[in-house]
Amino acid sequence: MSSRAAALVGAGAAALAASLVARGSRSRIARCLRPLSSYANATTDVLEPPPAQKIKVALCQLSVGADKQANLATARSAIDEAAGAGAHLVVLPEMWNCPYSNDSFPVYAEDLEGGDAPSAAMLAAAAAEHRVVLVGGSIPERSHGRLYNTCLVYGRDGRLLGKHRKVHLFDIDIAGKITFKESLTLSPGEGLTVVDTEVGRLGIGICYDIRFPELAMLYAARGCQLLVYPGAFNMTTGPVHWELLQRSRAVDGQLFVATCSPARGAEGYLAWGHSTAVGPFAEILGTTDEKPGIVYADMDFGQLAERRAGMPLRQQKRSDLYSLLDLTR
Amino acid sequence: MSSRAAALVGAGAAALAASLVARGSRSRIARCLRPLSSYANATTDVLEPPPAQKIKVALCQLSVGADKQANLATARSAIDEAAGAGAHLVVLPEMWNCPYSNDSFPVYAEDLEGGDAPSAAMLAAAAAEHRVVLVGGSIPERSHGRLYNTCLVYGRDGRLLGKHRKVHLFDIDIAGKITFKESLTLSPGEGLTVVDTEVGRLGIGICYDIRFPELAMLYAARGCQLLVYPGAFNMTTGPVHWELLQRSRAVDGQLFVATCSPARGAEGYLAWGHSTAVGPFAEILGTTDEKPGIVYADMDFGQLAERRAGMPLRQQKRSDLYSLLDLTR
Repeated sequence: MSSRAAALVGAGAAALAASLVARGSRSRIARCLRPLSSYANATTDVLEPPPAQKIKVALCQLSVGADKQANLATARSAIDEAAGAGAHLVVLPEMWNCPYSNDSFPVYAEDLEGGDAPSAAMLAAAAAEHRVVLVGGSIPERSHGRLYNTCLVYGRDGRLLGKHRKVHLFDIDIAGKITFKESLTLSPGEGLTVVDTEVGRLGIGICYDIRFPELAMLYAARGCQLLVYPGAFNMTTGPVHWELLQRSRAVDGQLFVATCSPARGAEGYLAWGHSTAVGPFAEILGTTDEKPGIVYADMDFGQLAERRAGMPLRQQKRSDLYSLLDLTR
Repeated sequence: MSSRAAALVGAGAAALAASLVARGSRSRIARCLRPLSSYANATTDVLEPPPAQKIKVALCQLSVGADKQANLATARSAIDEAAGAGAHLVVLPEMWNCPYSNDSFPVYAEDLEGGDAPSAAMLAAAAAEHRVVLVGGSIPERSHGRLYNTCLVYGRDGRLLGKHRKVHLFDIDIAGKITFKESLTLSPGEGLTVVDTEVGRLGIGICYDIRFPELAMLYAARGCQLLVYPGAFNMTTGPVHWELLQRSRAVDGQLFVATCSPARGAEGYLAWGHSTAVGPFAEILGTTDEKPGIVYADMDFGQLAERRAGMPLRQQKRSDLYSLLDLTR
């Protein structure tokens, strides 16, 4: 490499470092000092998915209220019902133990590292008892003085296999329609979450994360077979974007997508509902309306190879024109 | 920069160079020897769009047959009609002068640099006469012994403002449904095409290009207000993916998208039709069925700022976690 080229690389890294210093994260600074070309490229550095399984997925669209104990009981009952119906993978909604509001997040939050975490304990016990993989929607998490919107993933033995903290916070302001600012109370996660479970490799996002195609593209490049997004879209963006975004992530990545929303309540934040499962050709495998209930869908991960053989998008990407880097790998 | 870091950069570049040597392109090799961090990053190196205009767009869904002169007359007549109806921007379909088949491409191809290009001459004359911006769909182009699927963009004075050669060739094989291999006759384009016209900044893709979100994301980062995809989806992927892909590129990029298909013929390659215009909230502004006709849509590019203020996706991207590089800028 020429000294001029090295200087250019150095200059780029320095500029990036300066911008990250402004955002105040030491880990980000350390990350950016690593040369970009040493990061994984989503077009060329691709991991193959694990062996394909056929699984039954249950999306539990739960009623959520102000009574936390009641929310736990509702969730536990839905997991029981889904497992009884033969589901191998059970998914809960975003913020299932807590009303979706900045006032509630601190009150309902649990310290997952400190021991007093009744929601997490219930999830672990339910997964182990029923021998199911459980994507435990999300709950507010308290950690070292910060709050996160956190998804816990448990294996069949009840062991915690992965933890996703929502990386794109929901801060929007559509005049006269919907205004919300999660960042008033929550901090963003700092990483991607790929979880190898007994049913396959999952990529986890939470709600607003689904609006960022980069995240889904990196998950696809890591060999995820199914992207799971617990989410609570609202009455403005839900009708126009919820299904669109799921189908679009599925067809671009040629993989399965599942979402799980709370049911729509009578007051407070009104969730769109419509928990949905989508196949790798963007086909709807199962969906529902706004009411409480469980959506079941059969997924055959063997279809990924078939779809990708018929339309080899990954091999057809132009890695000479663009390059999506995974800065965490 | 440490010598170890420089060595890593060098190693990455060398590996990339080796893979490109295998693909046999000198320009690609030269490109990859430039350090990655000197390329524009779609998340952080963003160009603002030009001043917003309100425009009327016409998508001419043309009947295309084997008679090239008839195809030219049909196209000219549609441009006349669209201009007469007040369109500021007129769009033609993919391969509007030629049946969509590998047998036809070499026969109908024109040498755009050699002078004998009746389709290009007609487009230039029509744009100038009507004082419209014209995205001339695509035609087979012959250049230095190769064939390309090429879109020509003309300004109001009939001057050629841009030329896009389809960068992702349509090679798919869905068993029992649709098999096509453009690469049997066509060569891929080597670049992105952003065109500053009198009506605004356009990003151009052709048909299968729409399946690659990276292209649309780079166009959005360059300040494009409208992505235009002449395309001829088929009877398998058209019903399930055509509208989905357009709406998904629009909602992710928060910009306008327009597609223009040939009308469905009675034999040969059957185009899905359904030329469509989409707004930056993924709303359908105009569409049609499979028959010949012109779809009109009013677009107010001022909506981009409004949509992006309400939902600031660009600022919310996590440039510390992922980085989409534009290797051509």
